[in-house]
Amino acid sequence: MLDQEIIAQQRQELRRGSTSLACLALLAAAPDYGYSLLARLAGLGLEIEANSLYPLLRRLEKQGLLTFEWDTSEARPRKVYTTSADGTALVAVLREDWDRITTALHQIGQHS
Amino acid sequence: MLDQEIIAQQRQELRRGSTSLACLALLAAAPDYGYSLLARLAGLGLEIEANSLYPLLRRLEKQGLLTFEWDTSEARPRKVYTTSADGTALVAVLREDWDRITTALHQIGQHS
Repeated sequence: MLDQEIIAQQRQELRRGSTSLACLALLAAAPDYGYSLLARLAGLGLEIEANSLYPLLRRLEKQGLLTFEWDTSEARPRKVYTTSADGTALVAVLREDWDRITTALHQIGQHS
Repeated sequence: MLDQEIIAQQRQELRRGSTSLACLALLAAAPDYGYSLLARLAGLGLEIEANSLYPLLRRLEKQGLLTFEWDTSEARPRKVYTTSADGTALVAVLREDWDRITTALHQIGQHS
């Protein structure tokens, strides 16, 4: 029988690469807080843990793919992220890659 | 300007998860040697280095997703890999995941 842990690991690996792309594309469409982005991702069926998303956003910001501003309107300041011009350029590159892989996977065989 | 190293890193992350799926699907369609699988992947536009593919195949085999037999017809014995029943079941799961992510990415926005 197929080990549940192996399934989970393989599924996570498959998803990981797409998460950066989804975040960059969503934050290009509309700037957002991490917490609210989490809900937008979940609404698309792209579940991610908060403690995975926040480090990812910081990494994308350090890479210059996201920018942020502090929203100080609430008691606790919150970062509002937006996709940078570089991030938007990367979204186009990654979307092309994704589509090429999708085409390849369909060529290999029909869905079972 | 967008850092070439960051682009390369993000593209590699996007690709990584799909490589196991592509290998399992290809080796379910037809058993193969690592070296020859490399060419089939490249033919589909899924480039991977030999020194990345061989450890991946060993890992998939240890996870019970691939089986192998020794082909001793040549001077040097070679492993011929086949996708196991578990591997084939995983292909179906990962294909569903891939399609769900693809749908989500298209929902986020149109291609630029």
